Amino acid sequence: MKIYADNAATTKMSRAALDAMIPCLEEQYGNPSSLYSFGQRAKEALELARQDVAAVIKASPKEITFTSGGSEADNQALRSAAALGKKNGKTHIISTAFEHHAILHTLKALEKEGFEVTLLPVHENGIVRVDELEAAIRDDTCLVSVMFANNEIGTIQPIREIGAVCRAHGILFHTDAVQAVPHLPIDVETDNIDLLSSSAHKFHGPKGVGFLYARKGVRLTNLIEGGAQERGKRAGTENVPGIVGMAAALKDTAAHMEADTAHLIPLRDRLIAGLREIPHSALNGDEKQRLPGNVNFCFEGIEGESLLLLLDDRGICASSGSACTSGSLDPSHVLLAIGRVHDVAHGSLRLTLGEDATEEEVDYMIQNVKEVVSYLRGFSPVWRDLESGKTPHIL
Amino acid sequence: MKIYADNAATTKMSRAALDAMIPCLEEQYGNPSSLYSFGQRAKEALELARQDVAAVIKASPKEITFTSGGSEADNQALRSAAALGKKNGKTHIISTAFEHHAILHTLKALEKEGFEVTLLPVHENGIVRVDELEAAIRDDTCLVSVMFANNEIGTIQPIREIGAVCRAHGILFHTDAVQAVPHLPIDVETDNIDLLSSSAHKFHGPKGVGFLYARKGVRLTNLIEGGAQERGKRAGTENVPGIVGMAAALKDTAAHMEADTAHLIPLRDRLIAGLREIPHSALNGDEKQRLPGNVNFCFEGIEGESLLLLLDDRGICASSGSACTSGSLDPSHVLLAIGRVHDVAHGSLRLTLGEDATEEEVDYMIQNVKEVVSYLRGFSPVWRDLESGKTPHIL
Repeated sequence: MKIYADNAATTKMSRAALDAMIPCLEEQYGNPSSLYSFGQRAKEALELARQDVAAVIKASPKEITFTSGGSEADNQALRSAAALGKKNGKTHIISTAFEHHAILHTLKALEKEGFEVTLLPVHENGIVRVDELEAAIRDDTCLVSVMFANNEIGTIQPIREIGAVCRAHGILFHTDAVQAVPHLPIDVETDNIDLLSSSAHKFHGPKGVGFLYARKGVRLTNLIEGGAQERGKRAGTENVPGIVGMAAALKDTAAHMEADTAHLIPLRDRLIAGLREIPHSALNGDEKQRLPGNVNFCFEGIEGESLLLLLDDRGICASSGSACTSGSLDPSHVLLAIGRVHDVAHGSLRLTLGEDATEEEVDYMIQNVKEVVSYLRGFSPVWRDLESGKTPHIL
Repeated sequence: MKIYADNAATTKMSRAALDAMIPCLEEQYGNPSSLYSFGQRAKEALELARQDVAAVIKASPKEITFTSGGSEADNQALRSAAALGKKNGKTHIISTAFEHHAILHTLKALEKEGFEVTLLPVHENGIVRVDELEAAIRDDTCLVSVMFANNEIGTIQPIREIGAVCRAHGILFHTDAVQAVPHLPIDVETDNIDLLSSSAHKFHGPKGVGFLYARKGVRLTNLIEGGAQERGKRAGTENVPGIVGMAAALKDTAAHMEADTAHLIPLRDRLIAGLREIPHSALNGDEKQRLPGNVNFCFEGIEGESLLLLLDDRGICASSGSACTSGSLDPSHVLLAIGRVHDVAHGSLRLTLGEDATEEEVDYMIQNVKEVVSYLRGFSPVWRDLESGKTPHIL
């Protein structure tokens, strides 16, 4: 059996996205900035895509800027809000300890430029507390950035409540919604979101394209200077095929959101229940307030990397955390943020189900993870010490 | 007849590029940062693409960073060299008056940050003089950025000589080679190039992808912070299909470069000769030291926009200058830089031939441009004043 269970890393393009994209690659190759009709047709396709994208999050098309992906959108959102803050003498930013590195590393860069950053704790359940957020607000706070749903443990944050607090204090609110769009209902109006980042390849669109929503009146700072594309806010010839593919994927995936959620939650919970039967294991992040397809476990006495390679041999594509850091030897900053100790954090497994996942596949994964964990523990010195009582069990 | 004569704006994707790209869009969708074999195959495709790209400009694969296009590469090149300069107390940059806006606008931003910029003149022939460049060098010059070939008038710059001067003075040399790769022979070693920007959709690759060459030892500054992709220098899940498509297009187009050049030069010169028959017209830029497919003319008493729309009606896709600024009412900064006065610069026409251009197409363009120019002059008050002697002819 072949199971792709790493949909948080990237997804297979949908037929809808491919069908929209391929004609733009093959025949409709005009430059949307050109005056002639062949270019103007590309421009129309671009603006239709902008309408479709805006509609899904209840924004207006003018509030959508196309980018090369979620990381670029995150960088531009933070840099823009920081520039606006600085102009008003406000240089304090609030975020969380378990954001994606596109946020955390940009915040590090901003710190070097004189900004002060408060990273909120996310507690054992992987959820920010709104009262703690409110308590962290200062007179010079210019931005709050909290991800919509975490990319590793899938926990969903109280976005609407956070947005309301920010609105009440007159502070810009950005959310990295790369894992959430369009898998969760999002309405930038009722959710009080000022800036939102999204990436196409997380919802069956192409790689290399994403978008940044910026509420009307929130002036963007250019990351990329040059031509007047995207109302002068993002230079470079527009990636028309990618943008059109993204819009088609977004529309299609959003249309199935409710049905997909209803299908995935029981499968996710079956997978969680099955993996919990493994002794000295623990689910990472809140059991219910998590993305419909996300399962993330720690197993004592296990090296995450060996686990992944053996699962790969058995046809299962899984990850230990974020794909973006998989080359790194450091344990996941997300797992450390929810209080997992270094050794335990190293033995993590993320399985993220696609919308076409089946019960049979879930059972196959449970069976194989059980076998592989047991096999690996068989020659793990760490496990031997735990079992002999030389070191105490934590999980 | 339908003629696409705007290949400087964008090009049709080659069959080679499409054939390489589509399997990555459809089936090989793994994330190259993933550990499992499905992801590692994407990683291998990425690294093969890097080898192919590097080979065309005689670089080493480690010197290639994939970007979302030429503008991003230009921005990152300039920002990186500026950061290195600042570290050494050197804050003077030399460039030219007719660079692409991705360069000029980034330089404007750097000026606001304390850098001093000298823009060299490009004279009537649209070519930088190496002695003037050398004379502009100061003790605090950290970077020279001169485009390989101009995007509007196609003039080719003395890159090797400029590189040699920069090398002799220990100054970093960047070239925006978006119009040159792989239409002209480029060798980053013998050309003494330290940084080079390129864009796939200018050579029959996909839109939304490009690359930055940075010589070993030239430390890049991130424009986009986040994951550890591209050796930590450009965050974001890699656009594998785009990159693979770019490499295939580059290899394919480079393989035909000599034959294409031999085919295009006589066609270009035939087009130039034909358009010169129009009274009060002038070729923009040097007649010989220009890209094989580039023709750019000014016609007195003409509005460029009307000319383009009427040519569009006759099946000819042409532009008045850069596609990136076609929405703007300002005359081309490139034409102003070569000394065209405001009114004349407004009446410009760029025709950029594709490798499959034919003599029949060239003759069709000559015939139709002649007719349309004559038609438009028929009711142009500016032309009436010129013909009556009320205002003197300039061309």
